[in-house]
Amino acid sequence: MVEKKELEKIEEYLSEYMDSDVEFLLKIGNYILSSGGKRLRPVLVLTFAKLLRGYNEERDYPLAVAMEYLHTASLLHDDVVDGADTRRGKKSANRVFGNDTVVLTGDYMYANALYLFSIYGDIDMIKNVSDSVKKMAEGQLLELKKIGDMDVTLDEYFRILEGKTAVLFGSCCYVGAALGGAPQEQKDRAYNYGLNIGLAFQLIDDYLDYTSTEEKLGKPVCNDLREGKITYPLLSVMDKLTEKEKELVKKVIRDLSPSKEDIDRVKSIVEEKGGMTNTIEKARELVNNAITQLETFPQNEYLKKLEELAKFIVEREF
Amino acid sequence: MVEKKELEKIEEYLSEYMDSDVEFLLKIGNYILSSGGKRLRPVLVLTFAKLLRGYNEERDYPLAVAMEYLHTASLLHDDVVDGADTRRGKKSANRVFGNDTVVLTGDYMYANALYLFSIYGDIDMIKNVSDSVKKMAEGQLLELKKIGDMDVTLDEYFRILEGKTAVLFGSCCYVGAALGGAPQEQKDRAYNYGLNIGLAFQLIDDYLDYTSTEEKLGKPVCNDLREGKITYPLLSVMDKLTEKEKELVKKVIRDLSPSKEDIDRVKSIVEEKGGMTNTIEKARELVNNAITQLETFPQNEYLKKLEELAKFIVEREF
Repeated sequence: MVEKKELEKIEEYLSEYMDSDVEFLLKIGNYILSSGGKRLRPVLVLTFAKLLRGYNEERDYPLAVAMEYLHTASLLHDDVVDGADTRRGKKSANRVFGNDTVVLTGDYMYANALYLFSIYGDIDMIKNVSDSVKKMAEGQLLELKKIGDMDVTLDEYFRILEGKTAVLFGSCCYVGAALGGAPQEQKDRAYNYGLNIGLAFQLIDDYLDYTSTEEKLGKPVCNDLREGKITYPLLSVMDKLTEKEKELVKKVIRDLSPSKEDIDRVKSIVEEKGGMTNTIEKARELVNNAITQLETFPQNEYLKKLEELAKFIVEREF
Repeated sequence: MVEKKELEKIEEYLSEYMDSDVEFLLKIGNYILSSGGKRLRPVLVLTFAKLLRGYNEERDYPLAVAMEYLHTASLLHDDVVDGADTRRGKKSANRVFGNDTVVLTGDYMYANALYLFSIYGDIDMIKNVSDSVKKMAEGQLLELKKIGDMDVTLDEYFRILEGKTAVLFGSCCYVGAALGGAPQEQKDRAYNYGLNIGLAFQLIDDYLDYTSTEEKLGKPVCNDLREGKITYPLLSVMDKLTEKEKELVKKVIRDLSPSKEDIDRVKSIVEEKGGMTNTIEKARELVNNAITQLETFPQNEYLKKLEELAKFIVEREF
């Protein structure tokens, strides 16, 4: 779906603009950047720019990689927050370099991204992007706060999802559209496309957490439940649970190491009550919302790519 | 030196613009913001704005407090990096709320500051400020990297100082001058004023770390040495040490808990060789540099205030 040449160029720019002369920082930055990732965020920026009028490499790539730096910064801080041991199949940066350096490298990457925006972007993009970074922190704080909480609402859940993935996806599309010279209304539609595919992406993550295998996930199935997090599959059937079933859920999400039997029982209940189907339906609905946002954009190969991307999100791996 | 009314207004704006509807975030933000601090950074912004043409409250205060948010964000992350137990005489935020929430609250504050700049500032300010945030992270990483290192150079030491305090002081003055409508050359002079007083400020901190009392410092004397950090007093006499004295220094900075006797011996050596005098002289030189930068500015009460502020920095508490 993404051209190899574009990906290679993204990699080049990613290392070019990590231009600190503090060697230690480069080492950590390269460790995390080289551990892969699909570079979905830069691709979104570039595809919207191309969709609207072709693109200007020297101006657009720095901003495309700036969005990847923001993502990487949030992953670095996330690893510290979660006390993660692994990331993308490698030892997590905090385990290799320590929490202290990882926090500061994240800070550097955030600042570097905003710096690139001050050179190649405009003030309206910075407003949109910094608002998203605020929401990312808010969403993650809300998620922490809601661990072990039976009463998390759908509203709160979606706000957490927005912060995790969706607002940054939205900003990538917003920036790309702005680079393409879009008027405000079209920039907003681009943002909404990104927001909706981001939400769908995260819903599918939450779905796969129930249905996939430990081998594919790289962590135990139902990891969210183990960590005390109620996600959409369970949330969507909460009002159909008996009191006894609710007690079981409460026990599982408050237990620091719930038993495999209890986890399996909750999983079965969620499946029986239709939680998995609900999740897929909701994700499809969001993908359709996303595609609707594209209606007023030019009909060309890049539009097709964005439609495919949206659909791919719900069709992956199940 | 600072009017009470101005300080009160700063406090008002500080709490007004921490406007998240995530209550938990407000709680942490207020905890750290209410634990005091001299609000030197907002005062610098406002004083430069006033110096140049009076000021526009509704535009200047949000940016003045944005600079305090940046400072606070860096303190929060610093506490996580240092594993600090106390800050400004209170339990440090990481001890009260945990590293995870503190990292994220810091991220929120960084983003909120940049967001305020996207509304009330301009792209040139954002370039200056985000460059400073990059340098702050670089300086702190360099400091971590140099712990226990005998071969830290003066260049590296000053770079660490810049990151700790000076670049943010510089940016405060730059932003204030920009708000006052200064041309580029004057904005650069304002920046250099801030940079120089920031360096002097930090040199005096390093001086007091050797000469003050545990009671006044709120931490043991020679805490930097204990943490394996070589600062200006010692650095300035390094080439006058005998091989045996160097061995002692090496032992102390590499020892996780050096003995009081060894610390006292290093302290005496530094004093005998003139390290304390060197530090004061260097700080005075920097303060003079700072004051020289002010020459082309209008001669009014605010200029006097900036001169006083610079002098106060080297005269405090010794």
